[in-house]
Amino acid sequence: MSEPHDAVDVIRAKRDGGRLSDAQVDWVVDAYTRGVVADEQMSALAMAILLNGMDRAEIARWTHAMIRTGERMDFSGLSRPTADKHSTGGVGDKITLPLAPLVAACGVAVPQLSGRGLGHTGGTLDKLESVRGWRAALSNEEMLRQLDDVGAVICAAGSGLAPADKKLYALRDVTGTVEAIPLIASSIMSKKIAEGTGALVLDVKVGSGAFMKTEDDARELARTMVELGTDSGVTTVALLTNMQTPLGLTAGNALEVRESVEVLAGGGPPDVVELTLALAREMLAAAGVTGVDPADRLRDGSAMDAWRRMLQAQGGDPDAPLPTARETHVVRAEADGVRTSLDAYGVGLAAWRLGAGRARQGEPVQAGAGVELHAKPGATVRGGDPLMSLHTDEPDRFERALEALQESVFIAPEGSRPDLLPLVIERVAAD
Amino acid sequence: MSEPHDAVDVIRAKRDGGRLSDAQVDWVVDAYTRGVVADEQMSALAMAILLNGMDRAEIARWTHAMIRTGERMDFSGLSRPTADKHSTGGVGDKITLPLAPLVAACGVAVPQLSGRGLGHTGGTLDKLESVRGWRAALSNEEMLRQLDDVGAVICAAGSGLAPADKKLYALRDVTGTVEAIPLIASSIMSKKIAEGTGALVLDVKVGSGAFMKTEDDARELARTMVELGTDSGVTTVALLTNMQTPLGLTAGNALEVRESVEVLAGGGPPDVVELTLALAREMLAAAGVTGVDPADRLRDGSAMDAWRRMLQAQGGDPDAPLPTARETHVVRAEADGVRTSLDAYGVGLAAWRLGAGRARQGEPVQAGAGVELHAKPGATVRGGDPLMSLHTDEPDRFERALEALQESVFIAPEGSRPDLLPLVIERVAAD
Repeated sequence: MSEPHDAVDVIRAKRDGGRLSDAQVDWVVDAYTRGVVADEQMSALAMAILLNGMDRAEIARWTHAMIRTGERMDFSGLSRPTADKHSTGGVGDKITLPLAPLVAACGVAVPQLSGRGLGHTGGTLDKLESVRGWRAALSNEEMLRQLDDVGAVICAAGSGLAPADKKLYALRDVTGTVEAIPLIASSIMSKKIAEGTGALVLDVKVGSGAFMKTEDDARELARTMVELGTDSGVTTVALLTNMQTPLGLTAGNALEVRESVEVLAGGGPPDVVELTLALAREMLAAAGVTGVDPADRLRDGSAMDAWRRMLQAQGGDPDAPLPTARETHVVRAEADGVRTSLDAYGVGLAAWRLGAGRARQGEPVQAGAGVELHAKPGATVRGGDPLMSLHTDEPDRFERALEALQESVFIAPEGSRPDLLPLVIERVAAD
Repeated sequence: MSEPHDAVDVIRAKRDGGRLSDAQVDWVVDAYTRGVVADEQMSALAMAILLNGMDRAEIARWTHAMIRTGERMDFSGLSRPTADKHSTGGVGDKITLPLAPLVAACGVAVPQLSGRGLGHTGGTLDKLESVRGWRAALSNEEMLRQLDDVGAVICAAGSGLAPADKKLYALRDVTGTVEAIPLIASSIMSKKIAEGTGALVLDVKVGSGAFMKTEDDARELARTMVELGTDSGVTTVALLTNMQTPLGLTAGNALEVRESVEVLAGGGPPDVVELTLALAREMLAAAGVTGVDPADRLRDGSAMDAWRRMLQAQGGDPDAPLPTARETHVVRAEADGVRTSLDAYGVGLAAWRLGAGRARQGEPVQAGAGVELHAKPGATVRGGDPLMSLHTDEPDRFERALEALQESVFIAPEGSRPDLLPLVIERVAAD
């Protein structure tokens, strides 16, 4: 079959600062998925997009072209409204775990198609797999049934949604083109729109532990995704949130499940509780549900009930003890002072090196490995106080994990005040 | 073997507007040639170079890294100085054919490692292959012997010089990254420096029939190459020359050989004579030869003698009749007027479509095909006068060739004056 376009013409148009026509976008995404446009052509185009950008209509067209390469799901037969949440990824970001059952307990169905961790940020599926018996893979029918019964499901995204994205993401990963905002936005939103959720709340992280290092970049990404969702009929809101410091006191799979259960039990670190409630309120509002305060659902135990039923529906045992690592190393303060900073990237890297994450797709992770923090920025510490505990099954991993933390922890003289950003920096909604 | 660098780090450095370190350049060129850096990584890097540029030292390092992937030649054992010429390519550009024997007749050895045509510009080897018996392939020893005996050789560039360039050029061709000035300059100059010429004159074409469409781009390319040559010990000069209109009156293989022989015989179109003499004078000066006027060597027949001996040394018969095409179509003026323009790109495209060039590497070309012009811009024509003749062996090619010419030829009312650029626009030499 002869092709209606030529890959070099499409690349040149974007290279020279022009916009791609609808027909060019539709063709190049489809032809790349079919293997007609070669990897080396798509990577040159991705670099041109990264450096020259795309306008709102181009990004929307690109996103829908990716959606059309795969299947679409439909939640309209459910008895309640749906709301989904997506985080752009950060260190200690376990919010999905308490959030999904909490929102379900408020009467909104939460379909969370999740991924595994790669690099210094953890993966939701890896975390839940530290629950004995829990399985990530569900058929579409199982997923719909669980959404109707329990109201919350966290499971592996099937390969059927936007297969173009899967191929393109793997290419961007090895060609220095991950950071293109139009491509990040279309990658995330193609899957969310194809999934068929009615409402979507985006947690766009900014800071050392996040993809987006500056507020300007995070804001642009948030706006782009809110526009994309809105233009596609999905009620979409984004929060820009702080990822300069890890969320909560733990980074690591079972460690984060434990902290999530603490939140569902009415306790847990204040920042995790605050962000969970903020996102829950946005999800309820976006789904059109009013008159319910999610804080009540934490207090009355109904969120915990939903959590237990969510795990059990996927074979998990909520009463089984969580795995712990075989070895622990405690880092102590050398002198009195105030902890002024705690770099999220350093902590994420340390947790990864301890075995909580993987360097390549398909590698196993350690359920018990990770970093546990005993003092957050702002805390006063005494010489000899434990600052953090490092956990791993393989003690030869401690050295490189400690190296990652060397530049990440600062203790200033007493009386110093850390320069802390608010947790929720900004809210971005449709105009 | 573990690699000292990571391709993604190198791509990111250039993507973010930085300069590549010497070690990064050396590694990425070598690793790409070895297949360790993948095509999709190099194409992303090439796009980042195209859009973000390279500084003078980076381009020099890149060029020498390409040279080190292959062999180097050495002309220092010859009894006379060497000077080479390179044209960036244009329509009707047969200058190498009269130039090489003319300069040889002036006492300077001319090693012309040439290529074949692709697209709308012809290839020197394709043109010479219309001479009966002539062969393009010579060993390095045969080439050196002919340079000593005859003083001029035009032959196929072996695969030994800068193999990185061969691989990279094929990649750029399909990824919209041909037009990167640092990569064009390093591609040309890596082969010329590896070849070992003592002096080099560059004919940088500008206009519709050339790679470089604007004087600014052509000037930047010329300066970059002059700096590269000078920094590498090769006396290098560039002329910016006009490629808005075809050179001479012919575009096509045997047609251009015929015109070249006319020049060597003391006749030929004035523009071909002018540019041949201008380049010859630059080559003699760059090679340090003074007191010889190449115009005398055209008049006294010694350039023609060198041409005949050059062909004969490679098996060619200078007395054999040149091939002609089986079919001819004459385009005539519809009314009286002045030919005001003649677009080089349109004429090149027409010659290509008539069979003079190839769409893919390895395809055969027609020796007799091409376009013959009967009136150049500025000429007064009468209705019914022949404007040009189209030649091909396959008459079904006429239609698409005529389409290519439709926008290329303008006849204005009598008294109009065409807006003609000078042939040699500017001379670029080292500071």
